[in-house]
Amino acid sequence: MRHFDLAVIGTGPAGQRAAIQAAKLGKRVCVIEQGRSVGGVAVNTGTIPSKALREAAIHLSGSNMRGIFGDNYRVKRNITIDDLISISQHVIRREWSVIQDAFERNNVDVAWGRARFLEPHMLNVEREDDSERLTADYVLIAVGTRPARPESVPFDNRTIFTSDEIPKLEALPKSLIVVGGGVIGTEYACIMATLGVKVTLIEGRSHVLGFLDEEIAEAFQYHMRKVGMTLRMGEKVKKIERLEAGKQNGAAVTAELESGKSLHAQTLLYAVGRQGVCGRLDVEKASLAHDERERLKVNENYQTTVPHIYAAGDVIGFPALASTSMEQGRLAVCHMFDAPTNSMPHLYPLGIFAIPEISMVGKTEEQLTDEAIPYEAGVAQYRELARGQILGDDTGMLKLLIHQETHEVLGVHCIGTGATELIHIGQTAMAFKAKAEFFVDNVFNYPTLAEAYKSAAYNGLNKLRHI
Amino acid sequence: MRHFDLAVIGTGPAGQRAAIQAAKLGKRVCVIEQGRSVGGVAVNTGTIPSKALREAAIHLSGSNMRGIFGDNYRVKRNITIDDLISISQHVIRREWSVIQDAFERNNVDVAWGRARFLEPHMLNVEREDDSERLTADYVLIAVGTRPARPESVPFDNRTIFTSDEIPKLEALPKSLIVVGGGVIGTEYACIMATLGVKVTLIEGRSHVLGFLDEEIAEAFQYHMRKVGMTLRMGEKVKKIERLEAGKQNGAAVTAELESGKSLHAQTLLYAVGRQGVCGRLDVEKASLAHDERERLKVNENYQTTVPHIYAAGDVIGFPALASTSMEQGRLAVCHMFDAPTNSMPHLYPLGIFAIPEISMVGKTEEQLTDEAIPYEAGVAQYRELARGQILGDDTGMLKLLIHQETHEVLGVHCIGTGATELIHIGQTAMAFKAKAEFFVDNVFNYPTLAEAYKSAAYNGLNKLRHI
Repeated sequence: MRHFDLAVIGTGPAGQRAAIQAAKLGKRVCVIEQGRSVGGVAVNTGTIPSKALREAAIHLSGSNMRGIFGDNYRVKRNITIDDLISISQHVIRREWSVIQDAFERNNVDVAWGRARFLEPHMLNVEREDDSERLTADYVLIAVGTRPARPESVPFDNRTIFTSDEIPKLEALPKSLIVVGGGVIGTEYACIMATLGVKVTLIEGRSHVLGFLDEEIAEAFQYHMRKVGMTLRMGEKVKKIERLEAGKQNGAAVTAELESGKSLHAQTLLYAVGRQGVCGRLDVEKASLAHDERERLKVNENYQTTVPHIYAAGDVIGFPALASTSMEQGRLAVCHMFDAPTNSMPHLYPLGIFAIPEISMVGKTEEQLTDEAIPYEAGVAQYRELARGQILGDDTGMLKLLIHQETHEVLGVHCIGTGATELIHIGQTAMAFKAKAEFFVDNVFNYPTLAEAYKSAAYNGLNKLRHI
Repeated sequence: MRHFDLAVIGTGPAGQRAAIQAAKLGKRVCVIEQGRSVGGVAVNTGTIPSKALREAAIHLSGSNMRGIFGDNYRVKRNITIDDLISISQHVIRREWSVIQDAFERNNVDVAWGRARFLEPHMLNVEREDDSERLTADYVLIAVGTRPARPESVPFDNRTIFTSDEIPKLEALPKSLIVVGGGVIGTEYACIMATLGVKVTLIEGRSHVLGFLDEEIAEAFQYHMRKVGMTLRMGEKVKKIERLEAGKQNGAAVTAELESGKSLHAQTLLYAVGRQGVCGRLDVEKASLAHDERERLKVNENYQTTVPHIYAAGDVIGFPALASTSMEQGRLAVCHMFDAPTNSMPHLYPLGIFAIPEISMVGKTEEQLTDEAIPYEAGVAQYRELARGQILGDDTGMLKLLIHQETHEVLGVHCIGTGATELIHIGQTAMAFKAKAEFFVDNVFNYPTLAEAYKSAAYNGLNKLRHI
């Protein structure tokens, strides 16, 4: 029976980063993967496929060049699902080899099969034709989540489906109802709308993406409506049903809202909530319990209630982003093996690959107001930057939240081209407690979107000086 | 006669930023512009048109999507010059209105006409039908440069031309000789090669862009050759001649090299050196002298030998980039009016909008070696980043130069998609004397190119730990 310093269950972002980190610390590590390939949901059905789809959609639709070539510009008309999937497959295969290569270089063992606990330190890895027992001093559970599939929704994976089935669709639908205005719902709603699909988005709260700064969320909703999306905010779905073919002008599904409205479309994406998959791990054999959504609770060091068992990634809940999951995996391992780290959780960025991109770091205006921290907002509009004009991005904006007295940067909020990259300039400045004046003094390449930091700093500081 | 606190000659980046800065300090400012529109070379013939051309070339050629859709992918075949120029005109008009709007909002007077000194504090502004005298406490000369046009080169602006004439070309040539491997020469060489023009680049030194880190320059030259460009490094041009039509298989121009080679092409872009335009300013009336290339010398405060006359931008020489010119204009004004500034000249970035983009900040490997500063290089390849794979950028790279003992970041060098934006993350870190460990501890959005900082930091730190 093989023994490891660390056994990691799952090879998604949290598991990968944890395994590599432990290996770099000289530990003997095994990752257990039940799928046919490494990478977890991030590589295979979630993060990467959706970003590749997004890239293909933006390029093939020509939507990023319409500011320049006109509103009717298209690179390709009648985009097919094959156009989109090929790019995604290409990227997925590359990612597999990058991850496997990293495991090999670092001597991380990969055990293929389904893991379950036999004892607190012993796991069984089951394959179709055999199984293996192994023991480990530490275990990291990084099994991720799957889309919630409530029994009341009549999923058929063709007309009514979750995000997992999108890469397997046979054709682009003419119309789509998206239930759920979280990250997954809004990202796919934007991709589909960009491809010309008639999208209706239903969200129970008054805004999509509840964690966003309100001004950014409102700008985002404005953009979504501008590409033709119908938003039904503050609405709850009572019932989802398949329709008989041809009954409603080609509509195949109907969603009844609690407010009494009936919505019809060819397809429906159900994107409310994700569900852990701890039930099949037999965690009770390790004296561990999961919650009713099969997720695990951890302390600030990513330890479960059983000290040698850690958990990281989507299985522990918000924010369930690949970026933070990686960091959780790393921090968990550094805690296990007493390696020093310098974690900066207040500076974890949030990145939403909608169209347009959205990213934020630090506090929102609403949080600062709640906490009675006096601030001023400095805003830069992309259309006032030469680079924004060249890109034809008329609508992007970057907002700095500046402490009224110290001028320290308290938050950065960006919507528009490159937002997920640009945010890291502000994040780095915040890590060193930079004041807004830093951006005034700094020289930015011209023409770049990075100049937005300088414009926003001028704008905010001018307001503070009442110019 | 109107009197101003400051008269600025020229409305390019240096002049604009200076005028706005002085206005924000409550000064009465006049800008003098001899062209038909504001913005100088940057907006009208140089920076902006070339970047807009570049954007259109990349998009229409499909070159940025070939990593994904295959080597033969094209968005549009037979791209015409009109396809390219329309985007450029659009952006230029937007920039005019942004600049004029900024002048109006800040009460900066615009005096149209050609300026020349009558006395140290008095300028004459001449127009076709009238002229105006004005006086000013301070004068900032920001007249820029024009391409050098040596008499030995038989310019006809159609087959043999400078960068100024490119936006006016009637058709894309089949072949182009570019003389000069500086910023302008390499940027246009890349744009033209991307559009399918057969380009030969001639440079007297062993590498293009002499200020670059050598590894980056070599990678760049590799890329240029890969798109089919012929590089003639270490070669000097002896003679340029027009050919009689039809004499050499459609070639219209020949360049004889000192090494004895003869090169033929349909067209030739002469991009060696730029020339000041101070001769027409009558600077001697202000007891000021320009050098033989009609440029001005300044001290560290951008003052000429006449204390109330400052100069900024291309007219004072290297690096002659819009970004640094703006900063020079700002610093000159702050010095004039005793406003505090915090300048960080060691962190001025260099951004080259070639294809691929290149940017750098801080020291090169060669400089560190010369200065006997012990360093290690940490490198990230875009192809190992999920975002690089999605973008199909197989060749981009980011290099961190890390002090061997302190781990402080001493330089950042980037070639590839988004280089001019990404460099600002490293630049911000360097401004606060960050160590490479910062990037290991920082959480980056996934998938982004910004993750290159983390990969490069890991790579460099692993080397330092001999892992």
